[in-house]
Amino acid sequence: MGWKRVRTKLMHKGPFLSLYRDEVIRPGGHPGIYEHVTVDDGVRIVAVDQDRLIALVEDDFHLQRRRVLHLPGGGTGGEAPRVAALRELEEETGVVADEVRALGVIDPLPATTAARTHLFLATGLRPGAVHRDDTEAGMAVQWRTMEAALAAVQDGEITDAGSVTALLLAERVLRSTPSSPPGP
Amino acid sequence: MGWKRVRTKLMHKGPFLSLYRDEVIRPGGHPGIYEHVTVDDGVRIVAVDQDRLIALVEDDFHLQRRRVLHLPGGGTGGEAPRVAALRELEEETGVVADEVRALGVIDPLPATTAARTHLFLATGLRPGAVHRDDTEAGMAVQWRTMEAALAAVQDGEITDAGSVTALLLAERVLRSTPSSPPGP
Repeated sequence: MGWKRVRTKLMHKGPFLSLYRDEVIRPGGHPGIYEHVTVDDGVRIVAVDQDRLIALVEDDFHLQRRRVLHLPGGGTGGEAPRVAALRELEEETGVVADEVRALGVIDPLPATTAARTHLFLATGLRPGAVHRDDTEAGMAVQWRTMEAALAAVQDGEITDAGSVTALLLAERVLRSTPSSPPGP
Repeated sequence: MGWKRVRTKLMHKGPFLSLYRDEVIRPGGHPGIYEHVTVDDGVRIVAVDQDRLIALVEDDFHLQRRRVLHLPGGGTGGEAPRVAALRELEEETGVVADEVRALGVIDPLPATTAARTHLFLATGLRPGAVHRDDTEAGMAVQWRTMEAALAAVQDGEITDAGSVTALLLAERVLRSTPSSPPGP
């Protein structure tokens, strides 16, 4: 049962995106055409500082034609997701993290692409070096409480799927974690 | 500032997916190429019955090459998102809902497509008529508690971005709602 791939054809190969056209047998038994794209996997990282503030970045998105508020992150560029997440965090916000844990992996648009988005939670932050590429000119960093970040999710200010999911999952993790290290 | 679209070219038009190649000026001021796809907007719906059980559906996904557990939903097919969500709910699970509220809208993969996923919460369920298409043969419905559905999110059993986000947002809404109507 399930889908059967009879044949696949590369229809377009671009610098960041390729389009494939599969001839398939559908789960119901009939032949069909299934088109899909490949893009790099993505990463998003919730970086929490010693005051429990979370790094958010805002920059211009081409397809949305507006500024978008989201968690640090981007494409893996072929790197391991954890490495890519830490690289993006430092490049975009200027901090490095001593502790990173995985929050999960999501399928952002599973009927259109097999690409996944890998989500992380980073703590133990210290200064690094900002380094932004040409698509990120005009990027601005904000530090917000989790409460304020979740309010931005509920108000529709943060809509990027990886950012929304990582914040909601991180909140569940942090809720069960003491708010500061034990005193002396 | 921001991105400037100089020219756009339709590279491929398929039945469900089109590919465009934009000539752009990037936020940093340099020219570049930006390829992206258009697909229908998506919908996902958290349907909660009188025992506070939530409808989940499992079926075969072509690109993931496995069975995928997710909330009822699919593409809008050009319908208003709320209408599409209720249609998909009935077709996939055989229930209709008397009350629907919006949970939010996410951008599943904002660097690749402008398509959005619209999230809903449905209550007041009553029997309707299952009607599945040829891609949904082999679909199975499960009813789970919110606790069990969220455990499936945290265990990586539910990974579809719209499903994960809608469940996490619905849990926040339901947490502040009485668990049953007042008694007589």
